[in-house]
Amino acid sequence: MTKIRKTRAAVAFAAKEPLKVVEVDLQGPQAGEVLIEIMATGICHTDAYTLDGLDSEGLFPCILGHEGAGIVRELGEGVTSLKVGDHVIPLYTPECRQCKSCLSGKTNLCTAIRATQGKGVMPDGTSRFSFDGKPIYHYMGCSTFANHTVLPEIAVAKIRDDAPFDKACYIGCGVTTGVGAVTNSAKVEPGSNVIVFGLGGIGLNVLQAARLVGADKIIGVDINDDKKEWGERFGMTHFVNPKKVDGDLVAHLVDLTDGGADYTFDCTGNTDVMRNALEACHRGWGVSVVIGVAEAGKEISTRPFQLVTGRVWKGSAFGGAKGRTDVPKIVDWYMNGKIEIDPMITHVLDLDQINEAFDLMHSGESIRSVVVY
Amino acid sequence: MTKIRKTRAAVAFAAKEPLKVVEVDLQGPQAGEVLIEIMATGICHTDAYTLDGLDSEGLFPCILGHEGAGIVRELGEGVTSLKVGDHVIPLYTPECRQCKSCLSGKTNLCTAIRATQGKGVMPDGTSRFSFDGKPIYHYMGCSTFANHTVLPEIAVAKIRDDAPFDKACYIGCGVTTGVGAVTNSAKVEPGSNVIVFGLGGIGLNVLQAARLVGADKIIGVDINDDKKEWGERFGMTHFVNPKKVDGDLVAHLVDLTDGGADYTFDCTGNTDVMRNALEACHRGWGVSVVIGVAEAGKEISTRPFQLVTGRVWKGSAFGGAKGRTDVPKIVDWYMNGKIEIDPMITHVLDLDQINEAFDLMHSGESIRSVVVY
Repeated sequence: MTKIRKTRAAVAFAAKEPLKVVEVDLQGPQAGEVLIEIMATGICHTDAYTLDGLDSEGLFPCILGHEGAGIVRELGEGVTSLKVGDHVIPLYTPECRQCKSCLSGKTNLCTAIRATQGKGVMPDGTSRFSFDGKPIYHYMGCSTFANHTVLPEIAVAKIRDDAPFDKACYIGCGVTTGVGAVTNSAKVEPGSNVIVFGLGGIGLNVLQAARLVGADKIIGVDINDDKKEWGERFGMTHFVNPKKVDGDLVAHLVDLTDGGADYTFDCTGNTDVMRNALEACHRGWGVSVVIGVAEAGKEISTRPFQLVTGRVWKGSAFGGAKGRTDVPKIVDWYMNGKIEIDPMITHVLDLDQINEAFDLMHSGESIRSVVVY
Repeated sequence: MTKIRKTRAAVAFAAKEPLKVVEVDLQGPQAGEVLIEIMATGICHTDAYTLDGLDSEGLFPCILGHEGAGIVRELGEGVTSLKVGDHVIPLYTPECRQCKSCLSGKTNLCTAIRATQGKGVMPDGTSRFSFDGKPIYHYMGCSTFANHTVLPEIAVAKIRDDAPFDKACYIGCGVTTGVGAVTNSAKVEPGSNVIVFGLGGIGLNVLQAARLVGADKIIGVDINDDKKEWGERFGMTHFVNPKKVDGDLVAHLVDLTDGGADYTFDCTGNTDVMRNALEACHRGWGVSVVIGVAEAGKEISTRPFQLVTGRVWKGSAFGGAKGRTDVPKIVDWYMNGKIEIDPMITHVLDLDQINEAFDLMHSGESIRSVVVY
């Protein structure tokens, strides 16, 4: 039995209720696990989605948060790939390098711990967190809204020591999701024309990755004119507000790209937008990548003729990134100035202020709020 | 003015009426065109679709047929890539090697003559065929139900002289559509698990291409048990009749392929089947290729989660084959015994019997009927 330590955490005791910051009990790492001191965590729409009770598989009480950065403080038995003091990013998509998915070389969707992660517990079927003697569920295998957390070794990316935690944490979800969709999932080539639907945090990261890989036209589409300035800051060359387009949006975008885009990205989660994104692709080769998560029960549709004439419909989860392999590279890209993160961090808060971060997100006033412990 | 010659043709004077075999007038080839003596032609479902009046863009009177093989008999001005006596296959998808599509290297959907081809005329806007002094429309740029026809040079594939016309003609559409979907559009690798929905002529060609490239499990799905024997003849390793599956077909297929197929192909044109084909793909990397042509107005649908978790939905037209480049190779594959055609030719007819070929097709009694002139 490893020792139990106290740590501060923002606990979601029930859906639709504010988080409560309390001292929870955290059992130390078991075999193959590590204990991490979280130094900073982003607050992502997926956390809000679960807290709002919209995820039918959401489990309470739990400790939310999946976009963190921290330092390894303790090793469980048999851990070999990490050492105490390593700077790391927790991974909600692990990389075991042993399962059929990892070995395929074709996907980042490692299945090693999928079953238990979905049930809010560690691979041995139990939780490390408890409060008042009752277990508290883990969330997305990460639970970064706690100052300390425990993860399996395969779900931890070691990063360089000089990356600031309050920026690097965003690479744990939003940055990688957007940047990786361009570099891993779509593999956008220099000179491509790109359309990005939805200019929230993910959309901005898609824009800057399109700039990074040398795209030509980088078109941002959003119904909020305020996003124009944001988009231009991250490489957008043209802005389209669908509400201000006379006639058909797809026809307008096809015209703007001389026959359709080489690559389009949905960052909205709206299934009607996903259809537009596909149909704004160039005949013969245009690829549309779904990134946004749709409401339960919603479906995408199109005429099959769109596919038969050469458009490709695909998706991207965690930017197609293999966490332990690719996340450290994206940290390097940030540190080398290839991508920007600093201007996207619009609010920095204490853990005690975490409910404000949810309010800011719901009001649309933040790109990314970060809690620094 | 080039000379006008008489040639025998099966003319579709109106939709839903039998073809009439008459002598039509054929103007000789204009600049960039060649006159071809058609030696054999297949009768394809697309011909029947148009004749049945189901294609809202069908034009009458016309000379149907788009699956032929023949010999170049006359050259228009400036033709350099062909000579009199060349054995050739007419191409409904040309390959100009000059347009944006051809130069992209990413698609076979050459756009050089698309506009006029869709209007049933040659690139100069006129028809070469007439009867009783009135023009008759070309069909899919080929009109192989005539003993002689005229095509642009860019829509003619030169093939080897020793390939028999009565088999090679099938490479003009069905064989290339099925084989190319595997080799060009999906690029199936050795060891892959493949599911083929619909075991008509296209489906059988998908099966044999999957065998050619070294696929492991090659599963055929058809509601007609008679197709089992046909499938096995062309490489199918497992047969599934959806009517005889207890419970969910997709779950059954996912089980049979240990998590889903690496590649699936819809050869039915049924949009519900297209959805099953996508959802029977393996999480993380499965690719589903739509080949079948759906009824006007029908749409495909799925939950976007299917794409976000790594399945890819794409399509294939003319097997993704660049006609002048790839069709001669497929003729070589046939001549070298890599693919079979002979057993698929179930009926050989005279031009006078061509209406019988449509009857056989509607009754489901033929794989491929061929008219030999």
